[in-house]
Amino acid sequence: MKIITMGEIMLRLSTPGNSRITQSNEFDVVYGGGEANVAVSLANYGHDAYFVTKLPQHEVGQAAVNALRQVGVHTDYITRGGERVGIYFLETGASMRASKVIYDRSHSAIAEASEDDFDFDTIMKDADWFHWSGITPAISDTAAKLVEKACIAAKKNKVTVSVDLNFRKKLWSKEKAQSIMKPLMAYVDVCIGNEEDAELCLGFKPTANVEKGETGAEGYYEIFKEMKETFNFKIVTSTLRESYSANHNGWKALLYDGERFYESKRYDIEPIIDRVGGGDSFSGGMIHGLLTKESKQEALEFAVAASALKHTIPGDFNLVSEAEVEALCQGDTTGRVQR
Amino acid sequence: MKIITMGEIMLRLSTPGNSRITQSNEFDVVYGGGEANVAVSLANYGHDAYFVTKLPQHEVGQAAVNALRQVGVHTDYITRGGERVGIYFLETGASMRASKVIYDRSHSAIAEASEDDFDFDTIMKDADWFHWSGITPAISDTAAKLVEKACIAAKKNKVTVSVDLNFRKKLWSKEKAQSIMKPLMAYVDVCIGNEEDAELCLGFKPTANVEKGETGAEGYYEIFKEMKETFNFKIVTSTLRESYSANHNGWKALLYDGERFYESKRYDIEPIIDRVGGGDSFSGGMIHGLLTKESKQEALEFAVAASALKHTIPGDFNLVSEAEVEALCQGDTTGRVQR
Amino acid sequence: MKIITMGEIMLRLSTPGNSRITQSNEFDVVYGGGEANVAVSLANYGHDAYFVTKLPQHEVGQAAVNALRQVGVHTDYITRGGERVGIYFLETGASMRASKVIYDRSHSAIAEASEDDFDFDTIMKDADWFHWSGITPAISDTAAKLVEKACIAAKKNKVTVSVDLNFRKKLWSKEKAQSIMKPLMAYVDVCIGNEEDAELCLGFKPTANVEKGETGAEGYYEIFKEMKETFNFKIVTSTLRESYSANHNGWKALLYDGERFYESKRYDIEPIIDRVGGGDSFSGGMIHGLLTKESKQEALEFAVAASALKHTIPGDFNLVSEAEVEALCQGDTTGRVQR
Amino acid sequence: MKIITMGEIMLRLSTPGNSRITQSNEFDVVYGGGEANVAVSLANYGHDAYFVTKLPQHEVGQAAVNALRQVGVHTDYITRGGERVGIYFLETGASMRASKVIYDRSHSAIAEASEDDFDFDTIMKDADWFHWSGITPAISDTAAKLVEKACIAAKKNKVTVSVDLNFRKKLWSKEKAQSIMKPLMAYVDVCIGNEEDAELCLGFKPTANVEKGETGAEGYYEIFKEMKETFNFKIVTSTLRESYSANHNGWKALLYDGERFYESKRYDIEPIIDRVGGGDSFSGGMIHGLLTKESKQEALEFAVAASALKHTIPGDFNLVSEAEVEALCQGDTTGRVQR
Amino acid sequence: MKIITMGEIMLRLSTPGNSRITQSNEFDVVYGGGEANVAVSLANYGHDAYFVTKLPQHEVGQAAVNALRQVGVHTDYITRGGERVGIYFLETGASMRASKVIYDRSHSAIAEASEDDFDFDTIMKDADWFHWSGITPAISDTAAKLVEKACIAAKKNKVTVSVDLNFRKKLWSKEKAQSIMKPLMAYVDVCIGNEEDAELCLGFKPTANVEKGETGAEGYYEIFKEMKETFNFKIVTSTLRESYSANHNGWKALLYDGERFYESKRYDIEPIIDRVGGGDSFSGGMIHGLLTKESKQEALEFAVAASALKHTIPGDFNLVSEAEVEALCQGDTTGRVQR
Amino acid sequence: MKIITMGEIMLRLSTPGNSRITQSNEFDVVYGGGEANVAVSLANYGHDAYFVTKLPQHEVGQAAVNALRQVGVHTDYITRGGERVGIYFLETGASMRASKVIYDRSHSAIAEASEDDFDFDTIMKDADWFHWSGITPAISDTAAKLVEKACIAAKKNKVTVSVDLNFRKKLWSKEKAQSIMKPLMAYVDVCIGNEEDAELCLGFKPTANVEKGETGAEGYYEIFKEMKETFNFKIVTSTLRESYSANHNGWKALLYDGERFYESKRYDIEPIIDRVGGGDSFSGGMIHGLLTKESKQEALEFAVAASALKHTIPGDFNLVSEAEVEALCQGDTTGRVQR
Repeated sequence: MKIITMGEIMLRLSTPGNSRITQSNEFDVVYGGGEANVAVSLANYGHDAYFVTKLPQHEVGQAAVNALRQVGVHTDYITRGGERVGIYFLETGASMRASKVIYDRSHSAIAEASEDDFDFDTIMKDADWFHWSGITPAISDTAAKLVEKACIAAKKNKVTVSVDLNFRKKLWSKEKAQSIMKPLMAYVDVCIGNEEDAELCLGFKPTANVEKGETGAEGYYEIFKEMKETFNFKIVTSTLRESYSANHNGWKALLYDGERFYESKRYDIEPIIDRVGGGDSFSGGMIHGLLTKESKQEALEFAVAASALKHTIPGDFNLVSEAEVEALCQGDTTGRVQR
Repeated sequence: MKIITMGEIMLRLSTPGNSRITQSNEFDVVYGGGEANVAVSLANYGHDAYFVTKLPQHEVGQAAVNALRQVGVHTDYITRGGERVGIYFLETGASMRASKVIYDRSHSAIAEASEDDFDFDTIMKDADWFHWSGITPAISDTAAKLVEKACIAAKKNKVTVSVDLNFRKKLWSKEKAQSIMKPLMAYVDVCIGNEEDAELCLGFKPTANVEKGETGAEGYYEIFKEMKETFNFKIVTSTLRESYSANHNGWKALLYDGERFYESKRYDIEPIIDRVGGGDSFSGGMIHGLLTKESKQEALEFAVAASALKHTIPGDFNLVSEAEVEALCQGDTTGRVQR
Repeated sequence: MKIITMGEIMLRLSTPGNSRITQSNEFDVVYGGGEANVAVSLANYGHDAYFVTKLPQHEVGQAAVNALRQVGVHTDYITRGGERVGIYFLETGASMRASKVIYDRSHSAIAEASEDDFDFDTIMKDADWFHWSGITPAISDTAAKLVEKACIAAKKNKVTVSVDLNFRKKLWSKEKAQSIMKPLMAYVDVCIGNEEDAELCLGFKPTANVEKGETGAEGYYEIFKEMKETFNFKIVTSTLRESYSANHNGWKALLYDGERFYESKRYDIEPIIDRVGGGDSFSGGMIHGLLTKESKQEALEFAVAASALKHTIPGDFNLVSEAEVEALCQGDTTGRVQR
Repeated sequence: MKIITMGEIMLRLSTPGNSRITQSNEFDVVYGGGEANVAVSLANYGHDAYFVTKLPQHEVGQAAVNALRQVGVHTDYITRGGERVGIYFLETGASMRASKVIYDRSHSAIAEASEDDFDFDTIMKDADWFHWSGITPAISDTAAKLVEKACIAAKKNKVTVSVDLNFRKKLWSKEKAQSIMKPLMAYVDVCIGNEEDAELCLGFKPTANVEKGETGAEGYYEIFKEMKETFNFKIVTSTLRESYSANHNGWKALLYDGERFYESKRYDIEPIIDRVGGGDSFSGGMIHGLLTKESKQEALEFAVAASALKHTIPGDFNLVSEAEVEALCQGDTTGRVQR
Repeated sequence: MKIITMGEIMLRLSTPGNSRITQSNEFDVVYGGGEANVAVSLANYGHDAYFVTKLPQHEVGQAAVNALRQVGVHTDYITRGGERVGIYFLETGASMRASKVIYDRSHSAIAEASEDDFDFDTIMKDADWFHWSGITPAISDTAAKLVEKACIAAKKNKVTVSVDLNFRKKLWSKEKAQSIMKPLMAYVDVCIGNEEDAELCLGFKPTANVEKGETGAEGYYEIFKEMKETFNFKIVTSTLRESYSANHNGWKALLYDGERFYESKRYDIEPIIDRVGGGDSFSGGMIHGLLTKESKQEALEFAVAASALKHTIPGDFNLVSEAEVEALCQGDTTGRVQR
Repeated sequence: MKIITMGEIMLRLSTPGNSRITQSNEFDVVYGGGEANVAVSLANYGHDAYFVTKLPQHEVGQAAVNALRQVGVHTDYITRGGERVGIYFLETGASMRASKVIYDRSHSAIAEASEDDFDFDTIMKDADWFHWSGITPAISDTAAKLVEKACIAAKKNKVTVSVDLNFRKKLWSKEKAQSIMKPLMAYVDVCIGNEEDAELCLGFKPTANVEKGETGAEGYYEIFKEMKETFNFKIVTSTLRESYSANHNGWKALLYDGERFYESKRYDIEPIIDRVGGGDSFSGGMIHGLLTKESKQEALEFAVAASALKHTIPGDFNLVSEAEVEALCQGDTTGRVQR
């Protein structure tokens, strides 16, 4: 299927092993970013995934394009131009030392892109799905405008729209977020986001303390219902992360479709190899699940298994096949060598 | 003591860290393979270990020879010739993502070796022990023939013979395996292999579900007795692996000598650094134990401690000394820094 | 333009720096092979380059596909199946020590592919150019058959055909080569190959001693004319390499179109970073030149400049843009930092 | 504040990952050593930390100086001369395989330094604190003399003196240790050391079996009181390590000031990235805590949190800021990504 | 002596070996920048070198501070704040392929610093020399203002001022450059810059074609005289680079003091390991030479030898001691191993 | 043939690429040393080469043993014990920057070994050749004594003795050298050493200025004759190195047998990958040549070709086969890829 995602792909510079930025004289280089990561998941599951962004003509921009092509994402709708590829620095924590991200993404090509850079009608033509996240409208006012234009074109072309709320406090305040995100919800069919996102992006009152790891599924019933009713979403879904340490998390997910409340299997993830992109891999799995699985429960199980696997793979991208995710859904978590 | 092992040594190409094969632009290079790994263990414990195989003249073949020489294995009985060194690719998993092995070993020099390549009477002369595994007869019909010839020569020279059943489903069917392995059992004194191997290589009916981790020692009583009686083994022994995840296993072992059923201490191994060669290090420890320890219990404890340590060492080879294994047998599992 | 190349893409395992295979415990990993390298050049120059081959389903096969996608080569016509990705080991020499290649490519998926694996009429439909090399028919009899089928389909679809003769003594004898190559020349419009290739693949009598570096262009006049007349080529072209050491070569090229004999500028290449794929980058540059440049001289200059640059880039692929090649054609060889 | 530490800084050569020394062809290079590590912690917390030692003029000596300067330690009081920089080799264990340290530190510049190499009155002038450890007097008789001279100058300048007892059995016997350490205790205000150190360096009778992990705080009450009374320390403090494996430790600390017995929060550290320097980071945190915190409990909590964090950082140095330690003291151990 | 330099220190991300940016999955990390590089040279020669800039509080900013401290540069006058550390990407060329620099330095902390960030009177107090380059005023208008303020304070404190003209066409036009640089020349005693810089920054008419490598010293006589007269410089000096390839340059330098025209020895540099910072190392050597050598010829020889050595050292910084430079001045260019 | 060499094998720590020791955070690890390097060459040429030394029991000592075993050197006569493995640090220069070696070899196990550590009669029994160098008696007085004992045993067993004079100014003065070396010459049949060695070790008056590269063969005639007559050598031989830069040397060799003066072909070596061990590889080639070639000229050509190749191989050991040396002797210096 033709699936569109739009946003920013960044150069990620991470220190090898668990070194701190101040003690490293080399950086591992990958490229990634919320919506790009979703596109990669979908390409891995066999879809025609297109990532929409703007990237400079220079070699760093080209390297980002190549990273997407390598994993089979279509880059036809990427506009070339602008000055910068956004960058983020990543230091991988351990035990009680958290991983640390330093963003250096201001003034990137996509943050400074204008509406003329994209022909959304062409992009959305014959598309089956359009996915974006709350990061994109947060990076600049012009980017927020792009999201709106894309949503309008999507709806005009009868494309299903999903959003991952993904609040980023370094990018905007909750007041700014709500003023932009709420109107955009009118275009959204599938809303992905936890309580904290719901509160900060959409203004819902919190009902559980996620920081404390109180992630009982029940706490979500009320808010999911409210979200669905307020914005007329078809589906509301979220992962629930239990953070025991930088290396050890619990992981499951919930979905509400207005009729039933679905809860997935829970995974104990230890060790975590790389949790960046964990949420994006859930979005990718969810879109694939909703498009191809027979039931919502199956879609949810696929999404949560896919994202559990992501935590074991270095880099932002979830480099797993549909067959590998299915095998995990079937229950093989023993980690026996596959010969 | 002079100890002979025969089989294939392969070039192992593994991705650094937990990278997937599709995301790695370098491979770590070591050499290893079932019976070669056993030889290495025995050389480390001070024996004159000889590895018998065939390897090409070219540099890759030479590198395999060098890898054995480096750790003190005698390479005098390695025939040079043929085209290929067998290869296997290894991707190290994490948590619920299993490690993955891709074999590219067809047409290797040893798989295509003929009986003329080896003078087994010379090889077995004055030898104390001959060890082989079920992998060797599986790689080709000519290799199976080589095993038979070697066993005959061993028996003629009154050499003790051990086998590690080691069924490999990518190499042969259970029907083919049984048709070749059963007759070879006539030469075997010490049989190493778990229930699954016993079923697939020798046709015994399963009594426990190893996949499910039901590895209670009792389940093995019956089958060990049957194995001993059917094939007149002097000793039957096996490891019991409990697979919790790719990084966390339980590990113990059992031995039956017709009189008593011995059960070893159990080790909790976390994290696992490299579990490839875990079974081989058990075989190596067992041969050393049976040759040098006063009791079967001590032999078993040595073997299981040796193989527990193997899981903490990168590569196929178990690079530990007898003193290090003994220290673990004595009970120091605290991992305190040794200064 | 739509350009088709067909052949084998291999996993290349090279030792870092100038280490020998016997002293290295890691290999750098890239993927490459004659016709794949040509496709990459053409993708870099903006063409729709399609590489035709067969690759296993497993991760190593997928990594080869990804390597092509990363640089923009279309992989739609790659059939998945078979057991092996061909491998070559590379040791980079220095000074008087030559680089060394060990091939381990027998039984690869493409070597064992059958005609049913490809639909050449679809592949050649609307194509502008089809390029193959003398390596492909040499890897197996079935592969030779594939080349013939592809040539027939190309001609049926009025596609220009080029060949790089590329004799490989490890793959076939000159007698075998001639028996297969000569008939295939009937389909060829543009023939790329030096005197040695002409002798070994096509049976022309040598007129100069290339080994000794006697690469005077005049020596080529006679043989190019003969080649053109015998096989009715439209163009005959070749590079001339002067080998001073593993690190220092002279490099130029010649072209004959039946009317004029063209000779390119000569480049002094020192140091050579990686000369593997040097000839392929010439083929890629030549095809691009003949398709887009106004004169044969310009085409030749583009091809030789492109391939000179290849010698400065690690890996098989010539990762340069058209603009970079043009800049070198314009004469900037000073190597001043471009800020 | 001006803080002086004195001792040896060594070149540390460690194998990458969990490789054994016999299988590694590269070593990671850092510089470190007990008292140098303490100086680094103090510089990180904003103090003017001076490290006193002697280092050769050559590049390896210079690299040690540079390593200290990089993290802001003042090197003004380092005397240049002598032949060797002490070396230690480190092999990082895993699970039940302990990390292993091989010392090659005899004949280092500081071990052979004489009293003329340092002007302790200048060094101690206006200093607020002087810290040394039991390693320094153990490396040579002249070094023991240097410690005494430094202590005398410290007391003359009214500088607070702390010691980390740190018994090293490879460097001296307990008889030798006691004959030198006991008289030096006359200068000490703050004594850091566990039961084992107290026994071996100072001759106190053991009351608990630390090896067995019986680290109940109560066992320390008696011995801390005795230590305080015998040597008139102002403060006695110690960490308590529970060693479950090379990767998993429990960690807390105790402090006695003659009035109250303080016990810190307990940290569960898993995985341990690098435990070398764990004790030193406790000393550094303790000195900072005692100099700047309002209560002894806060000082103790700062010290134990700082040293828990150290276990997650590669190298000897504890590269954390005061803010990061404080955040952990405040209780955030979830390891959530900090964006 | 107290020497001040002011400007930007950037994070440099370079590909290992000769890889292109599009093919690298790791970057080597160093920190460097024109005036910082000069400070490093001066610290190496034993001076109290202070680098003045603004850097963010975060870890990347701290890493830049640490890089300076490591080599002994004083960082007391570095203001912390702002958002970004400027970045440049470096791809190292070979033979006719030029090295390539991609700047990503807009909006860096120093580019957005204000006059309030620095107390130039304190900075210049008791200073002996102040050095800046044409890059600093080019990065932003506020930075240009900072340079002016610094120059005024320098002159007020009777500090010798040197400039390296260093025109960067990516940062400003020659019109803009001249409008800002010409007035600043009033404060300058020592002007470093080649013909091209003189033309672009100061508006002098070119007399030689540097691109073509016509670097005969005579061509410089006229322009140096003009420069001295127009701006009343005490000394005008420049390097002359002959670019044969990315790996092979000729290197010498000229100096004019109003009385005599000095020309240095010429160095043939092959291979070039890293030519970034070559000019800066000349400035550093020149300042040291003018401050400490008996004659201008000696100063010039020291500067050109220092900068020739820089070309053999990876990174921006010229990590050589005064003794090493002197040894080269004395004429040992044989490269014999120093044991 | 059975060939004995005796001396020290050291841990070599070198910076990657051309990094300086002060800027490297990893060291490449190999093991090497004059006489060990000779043994390796001889093992490569098919001899039974035994290296005699003393090495500590610990892992670093074991790694040195393994390094020898890997390349096929017999380690049966290595005594285990002592404290240290000697170390040398290596920084690889470039262009006019010389490579730099820092020795840290005092107090090594072999330097402190006693005569009781070796049974020279067993060692020399049935041996064909014994080789040592001037480094061994220089490392300690006891080591000098060992050399004498070994020489006496060699002569008793009618073993040919060769010496490489190899003066090391860091290890002893020329007075000390001569007092020890001169008496030892009584046992020597083949003397390897250039003019400088002859002067410093044996007291001959210099006749050429090697530093200046005046290495005309004629200058050696006189001194070789004198050496032969004075000490009754059977053969005197030496390499002649022309040092143009750290990367570019000329290389040839001379031999005098009392009858004729032989001069080898000259090699131009550029680039030099690693020149450490160049002289040792000449000694190894010479011993092999004298033992197996028909003429002295062939022996000399073999030795000089072998050592030319060594300059292209990283590490101390000359990892080339006899066939590769022969191919170079036959004149193929073009460096064409060997496929």
